[in-house]
Amino acid sequence: MTEEMRMESDLIGTMEVPKEAYYGVQALRAKQNFPITGQSLHPVFIRNLAKVKKAAAQSNRNALALPADKAEAIIRACDEVIRGCFTDEFIVDAIQGGAGTSANMNMNEVLANRANEWMGGRKGDYSRIHPNDHVNMSQSTNDVIPTAGKLTVLELLKPLLAELDGLERELRIKAAEFDGILKMGRTQLQDAVPMRLGQTFHAYATMVKRDYERLKEVRCEMFTVNLGGTAIGTAINVSPAYLSNVVPALAKITGYPLKQAEDLFDATENLDGFVMVSGALKACAVDLSKMCNDLRLLSSGPRTGFGEINLPARQNGSSIMPGKVNPVIPEVVSQVAFHVIGNDTAITMAAEAGQMELNAFEPVVFYSLFDSIDTLKEAVETLTKNCIHGITANEAHCRSLVDKSVGISTALCPYLGYKESADIAKTALRENKSVREIVLERKLMSEADLEHVLNPEMMTEVHFEQRKAM
Amino acid sequence: MTEEMRMESDLIGTMEVPKEAYYGVQALRAKQNFPITGQSLHPVFIRNLAKVKKAAAQSNRNALALPADKAEAIIRACDEVIRGCFTDEFIVDAIQGGAGTSANMNMNEVLANRANEWMGGRKGDYSRIHPNDHVNMSQSTNDVIPTAGKLTVLELLKPLLAELDGLERELRIKAAEFDGILKMGRTQLQDAVPMRLGQTFHAYATMVKRDYERLKEVRCEMFTVNLGGTAIGTAINVSPAYLSNVVPALAKITGYPLKQAEDLFDATENLDGFVMVSGALKACAVDLSKMCNDLRLLSSGPRTGFGEINLPARQNGSSIMPGKVNPVIPEVVSQVAFHVIGNDTAITMAAEAGQMELNAFEPVVFYSLFDSIDTLKEAVETLTKNCIHGITANEAHCRSLVDKSVGISTALCPYLGYKESADIAKTALRENKSVREIVLERKLMSEADLEHVLNPEMMTEVHFEQRKAM
Amino acid sequence: MTEEMRMESDLIGTMEVPKEAYYGVQALRAKQNFPITGQSLHPVFIRNLAKVKKAAAQSNRNALALPADKAEAIIRACDEVIRGCFTDEFIVDAIQGGAGTSANMNMNEVLANRANEWMGGRKGDYSRIHPNDHVNMSQSTNDVIPTAGKLTVLELLKPLLAELDGLERELRIKAAEFDGILKMGRTQLQDAVPMRLGQTFHAYATMVKRDYERLKEVRCEMFTVNLGGTAIGTAINVSPAYLSNVVPALAKITGYPLKQAEDLFDATENLDGFVMVSGALKACAVDLSKMCNDLRLLSSGPRTGFGEINLPARQNGSSIMPGKVNPVIPEVVSQVAFHVIGNDTAITMAAEAGQMELNAFEPVVFYSLFDSIDTLKEAVETLTKNCIHGITANEAHCRSLVDKSVGISTALCPYLGYKESADIAKTALRENKSVREIVLERKLMSEADLEHVLNPEMMTEVHFEQRKAM
Amino acid sequence: MTEEMRMESDLIGTMEVPKEAYYGVQALRAKQNFPITGQSLHPVFIRNLAKVKKAAAQSNRNALALPADKAEAIIRACDEVIRGCFTDEFIVDAIQGGAGTSANMNMNEVLANRANEWMGGRKGDYSRIHPNDHVNMSQSTNDVIPTAGKLTVLELLKPLLAELDGLERELRIKAAEFDGILKMGRTQLQDAVPMRLGQTFHAYATMVKRDYERLKEVRCEMFTVNLGGTAIGTAINVSPAYLSNVVPALAKITGYPLKQAEDLFDATENLDGFVMVSGALKACAVDLSKMCNDLRLLSSGPRTGFGEINLPARQNGSSIMPGKVNPVIPEVVSQVAFHVIGNDTAITMAAEAGQMELNAFEPVVFYSLFDSIDTLKEAVETLTKNCIHGITANEAHCRSLVDKSVGISTALCPYLGYKESADIAKTALRENKSVREIVLERKLMSEADLEHVLNPEMMTEVHFEQRKAM
Repeated sequence: MTEEMRMESDLIGTMEVPKEAYYGVQALRAKQNFPITGQSLHPVFIRNLAKVKKAAAQSNRNALALPADKAEAIIRACDEVIRGCFTDEFIVDAIQGGAGTSANMNMNEVLANRANEWMGGRKGDYSRIHPNDHVNMSQSTNDVIPTAGKLTVLELLKPLLAELDGLERELRIKAAEFDGILKMGRTQLQDAVPMRLGQTFHAYATMVKRDYERLKEVRCEMFTVNLGGTAIGTAINVSPAYLSNVVPALAKITGYPLKQAEDLFDATENLDGFVMVSGALKACAVDLSKMCNDLRLLSSGPRTGFGEINLPARQNGSSIMPGKVNPVIPEVVSQVAFHVIGNDTAITMAAEAGQMELNAFEPVVFYSLFDSIDTLKEAVETLTKNCIHGITANEAHCRSLVDKSVGISTALCPYLGYKESADIAKTALRENKSVREIVLERKLMSEADLEHVLNPEMMTEVHFEQRKAM
Repeated sequence: MTEEMRMESDLIGTMEVPKEAYYGVQALRAKQNFPITGQSLHPVFIRNLAKVKKAAAQSNRNALALPADKAEAIIRACDEVIRGCFTDEFIVDAIQGGAGTSANMNMNEVLANRANEWMGGRKGDYSRIHPNDHVNMSQSTNDVIPTAGKLTVLELLKPLLAELDGLERELRIKAAEFDGILKMGRTQLQDAVPMRLGQTFHAYATMVKRDYERLKEVRCEMFTVNLGGTAIGTAINVSPAYLSNVVPALAKITGYPLKQAEDLFDATENLDGFVMVSGALKACAVDLSKMCNDLRLLSSGPRTGFGEINLPARQNGSSIMPGKVNPVIPEVVSQVAFHVIGNDTAITMAAEAGQMELNAFEPVVFYSLFDSIDTLKEAVETLTKNCIHGITANEAHCRSLVDKSVGISTALCPYLGYKESADIAKTALRENKSVREIVLERKLMSEADLEHVLNPEMMTEVHFEQRKAM
Repeated sequence: MTEEMRMESDLIGTMEVPKEAYYGVQALRAKQNFPITGQSLHPVFIRNLAKVKKAAAQSNRNALALPADKAEAIIRACDEVIRGCFTDEFIVDAIQGGAGTSANMNMNEVLANRANEWMGGRKGDYSRIHPNDHVNMSQSTNDVIPTAGKLTVLELLKPLLAELDGLERELRIKAAEFDGILKMGRTQLQDAVPMRLGQTFHAYATMVKRDYERLKEVRCEMFTVNLGGTAIGTAINVSPAYLSNVVPALAKITGYPLKQAEDLFDATENLDGFVMVSGALKACAVDLSKMCNDLRLLSSGPRTGFGEINLPARQNGSSIMPGKVNPVIPEVVSQVAFHVIGNDTAITMAAEAGQMELNAFEPVVFYSLFDSIDTLKEAVETLTKNCIHGITANEAHCRSLVDKSVGISTALCPYLGYKESADIAKTALRENKSVREIVLERKLMSEADLEHVLNPEMMTEVHFEQRKAM
Repeated sequence: MTEEMRMESDLIGTMEVPKEAYYGVQALRAKQNFPITGQSLHPVFIRNLAKVKKAAAQSNRNALALPADKAEAIIRACDEVIRGCFTDEFIVDAIQGGAGTSANMNMNEVLANRANEWMGGRKGDYSRIHPNDHVNMSQSTNDVIPTAGKLTVLELLKPLLAELDGLERELRIKAAEFDGILKMGRTQLQDAVPMRLGQTFHAYATMVKRDYERLKEVRCEMFTVNLGGTAIGTAINVSPAYLSNVVPALAKITGYPLKQAEDLFDATENLDGFVMVSGALKACAVDLSKMCNDLRLLSSGPRTGFGEINLPARQNGSSIMPGKVNPVIPEVVSQVAFHVIGNDTAITMAAEAGQMELNAFEPVVFYSLFDSIDTLKEAVETLTKNCIHGITANEAHCRSLVDKSVGISTALCPYLGYKESADIAKTALRENKSVREIVLERKLMSEADLEHVLNPEMMTEVHFEQRKAM
């Protein structure tokens, strides 16, 4: 029993399309031309493209270019797609040639066939509602696709921002919780000077906050759209009324403060805005991966590493080594960071490769960028919930490392000079003694003064003057 | 009606698992910890991991470490997975923390539960066959996962190599077909000297052949495996018999000339072999993208571009511009190239980030590498079938460009010197005349000699001596 | 005849230093340890590090930590370095281990020896002014080096911003100059619809303006410094007076609105600010390279390419092909763009690799970032002066391409529908006729209407309503 | 007093050149057009380009295309350049537009002027020896520049290979030296199972050996040259005698087994060979950086880190922290690795951006690639001499970490099963006891058996059977 088919035709010729499909010949050809990733368009992108179509239909109706009944039918179909209907009808691969024409035509066909049904027609009969003439009226792939792409970035950034905000809060909680815990700071993995474990987490919170702010700021790059520019920015086949109304209409539908680019040519041919978004994601990924590497270092052990903190055990760590618990959550976050940085390379190359009035490589830019945001969001979420939240400190061990370190000799410099202090440190290490012992042996300071100067609690505050004043 | 559940426990505690699931508690925890890409393990990876498990079970049985009945049950379960059964039971995300422990345990659990059934037990009762003690016997994530990864690369490369071979053949056909067509060569997009269109395609064929050979060669990086090294390369918990048998057993199962690494520590902790495979894929991507950009240039037009060749029309090119046909296939290939190059960045960073006896970031390396091979294979396939095969040439136009070009003045240099020839070229351009006209006007050569020297057919062959000898 | 030497010692031991050298043993050891690039520290970095040292000396004096005479001597030495003296005394390689300690100590030694001279001492006698105790007082490599790095970025960005501003102005001049020239727009290198050549250049100007604004904006990342945090951010060995004064002092010396980071730990260990600057440079590079590729395409020819514009001839294009002129300036700009993007990869990896309280890889971050700004500045300057300024247009050729194109059939869609228009375009191409001819043959529109609808001047303005209203 | 000048002219016009300069007008224009990096051509590249010129002159003479006296004069000039003369006469920037035409013409001019002198002429009088007609006879920038580039890669790789070989030997010495030292292996920074410190270094040696072999192998990519192809591969203006002789002549001069590409078009337009060399360098960089990160981890401390090995102290570690010694050599190696990986990105993008019969971006490819090889060579040299050679081990500390670790519980699995072993490990950690204690408490094994099973010396050898057989 074979599927029932209908015939459709395009520039290339005639082709069979499943009779009950809302998509048409153009989507089907694209599906055959681009069997690349096996992944279809991002569902959020589909919804946003439908919003663009809705804004266009409204504006065409208001400009009297599209009869009210046709407009209503198209808008009704758009609303269905926006609600999540017909997801199986979007059959084109996420990575496709043609700058998104296939995605646009897939949408135009689905909406035309559905709107046609609302008007009493049947699928494949485009006499009432034609994919190009009515659904795509006053539009070009070249303006609707980047516009929908920007809306998608904005929408996907929302949950990422929320997760970063949650991560920052969790880190601040840890910063407060660990404020009283003295530990050694390390530079270049060598013992440096004492600090508080709370300061470690406070620094992460500050860092994450900055990434949050940057991503919030970089969203502005997405507010300027080229909708109305049609093919190359000349706004060919677009009425003045449509041109001035369509972006405000879309702003109203989406709730974003969108504005039409002043230079529609520039806005059509250049993708640097996406490069900037990806760049901010990359900076965020860099920060998160650095922090996760720190978490692995701080929790290294349990018996042969730094052992200053414990990450919550999330799963058996090994198939062969019993009892092993591994820092699996920080590990997955670093992997996502590498993935995001790799995506940034792809986005950069695609943006650079644009030619003349269009960048034909938008699909891979969107594919990579949406993927970066999505995976980063998931990574931050699992990091917050499954790792940061449950971190505990080994307070006594932290303190004992401070006590046996020679890094505290730094605090002697203002009193004994760099050279003498260096010799003390060197001797302490060589003779396996404490800095304190050496100073007293050499009778360089009184025990009381030394107590004061080598007090790690004070070293981790700005109390120099008091110490100096002793 | 809720799903029926069974209880399972691990190091972390007790947890409900769907009663009918072949996977167990460890896979389930991993699924919750790593909701990153929404994509599960590559099906070819799953099959190859099962082959590794089969080789291990055989070797454990032969080493008398595993009773024959248990071994048989495990092998039977392996064979089912190898045949493609139980695909839904592999529930862990492709990007995961823990260096692949979750993937390994997911497999161990599925095989244990299935082998258990073959022995008359039921799911979740690991008394007969235990995921760690029996299925994972003599193994560690640290040796089975990279081994399965290498096998997967080998298997995925096969169709890519076949597609590259097909592409080369199609290019050679075009090279022969277009051998008689004279056209202008261009350097730096400026008119250079004449060539034959066949030479253009012959160069592409040679290039693709080189990529093919490189990828074939780089497969050798994958033949050396660390199987038997278990946790870190010490082969802890492994019998000498197993150690010497398991790789030959796997070689027999897979058909690849595998050999055990002489230095199992190195082979466990370093991922540079994957970096090399990705590097060869990247070089191939670079070549393909360059060729595809050329195809877009050569077919640019139809009326305002180079217009020397026609790519087959595959779909409507535009939603707004009627009759437009775009080079959609070359475009998608370039996008895949950018994607592959981006993946290379991720792989490089992950490989660099390894620490001590293990690189915990193997999952993202595999995810990216498998993806590069798969998408490149699809891209080459559509390129060959949907583009190269149908290319036609505009012979007359090619020839007319040669005839009006001044680049042929290069052929005058041996007779008139660079300076005079340059002046001729410059004058021809300024006065909008042909090179031929200027030479004759200046009475620098006889018409017969000129006919000989400026013959583009001859310029495109090595016939210098004959010309010289006139 | 051997150079006269003096002896100096450090933690490692005793070593000969040239008697007349202002640098000391630590710089010399570093020179031997790091013979990497053969390039020394960027001169602007050296000057800015001296400014940091000056601000520190002032603040130490005001905090009564440093006697006035010592402070004055140090400040005097700083002023000399700021004026450009002693450049040969900075002998350490730009890429160095140790997070910049060698650069810092090279500076401390030069300043100590010079200040010492001002106080009547001689080189190598650090009893009056000690490199660590006095010149480096209240400082650590970990705060002075990143601070000097940020100042350097700010200073190097100035001429780049000026050049981008100049480029934008030149592009606007061309936009105005070419406003009346009709040409075909191209998408995906295929004929699209008409536009004006001025619009092409206007789009570039808009793009460059955006890059300018972004780079101006991203400078803010550089205004927050960790000066005062010393080793890891605890401000160990720093007096409250110094801590609160040193950044305002530096702000006064440099003229930048610097502020001290609220979280000195974060500001010491994270380098994401530099990643952001590099990201904005990368976006700028992407844009410039895209534009330069366009310029190569538009000027391709002279007889077999697009030939719409002429780039000024800057040099002989070929050693063998007489009269050839190549787009050498756009070519060098694209190369610089690739170089900048490569540097971004290095910066990203270095930033990600930071561990705990410090990122030891700052030197390669600075090396790459300074290099990106410098080379981009040079590229933009030569682009503006030696290319954009002298571009001319081939107006008649541009117009003739418009006239023979079928892309104008797009303008028929609102009147004849997409399907009919597509057929007209296809027929025009097949029969080698003009769109106009076919429409008239088919009697689809009157000649007058057609004249109106197919007027390319109008297509390039928003005059749809008038056309519609005819 | 101004420099005396002479007049020269080219396609662009007339220009003053310093009277005593060997370079001419074309080099001077290029210098003005490309003030990019301030760095001139690599000296090894200059020498190799002169070798190419020499081979060409010989072949032209033998083909009777160039009179013997002119040929001799040119060859004599080439020999001078090959010996290192006239280095200041090469004035063009390493990054230049024009695919290397400026580099080629700079060489042609220097050789012409010098050869002219040998023939009794003076600078600037090109009547005897003309830069294009005689020095550049039968050549094009498009074949001589990539050929010289490949020779340069080959020559620069020699010292890098020697350094890698030296590094491997030093690592093997350490592997032998540390073979008796038991230490804990770590996976994912968590305690795994025991190993020997010698095995750590043996793994590094094996890894470096592989990189060495790969780089040696990838040199083959450089042996195939396009010399003779001239402008685009048609060998225009080249005699059959020259065409067949020039590559053997160059092979003789250089000592490399060069061969002429069979497809000269492909060999002229595609740069994937350089991408492959860069890829192998990148893999090497990845490996070295990973090892250097390990060295930093293993030597972390001295009191709060892993502290298993000591890197030789090379310089004061800190300007503020007395006695601090940092892993500065591994740090600089990682930075060079990031730099090499960044260069690979630039090379990849440049290679991808080639168009039609030429890749105009060769200069940045060469600049980046030569730089990668040079800096990597320096990094490996300092790593071997200044770090690896002097590493010492803290044997007692290594052993004590093994003794207190619970990772050895892995060895219990074959006897007690994974679940029981895991419980033992968990209990040991919780109750701060040794694995041994718990097993004895629970009376799971006899003391003698336990002694046997938990013997770390045996765990680090393949002695399983013996243990099993007890």
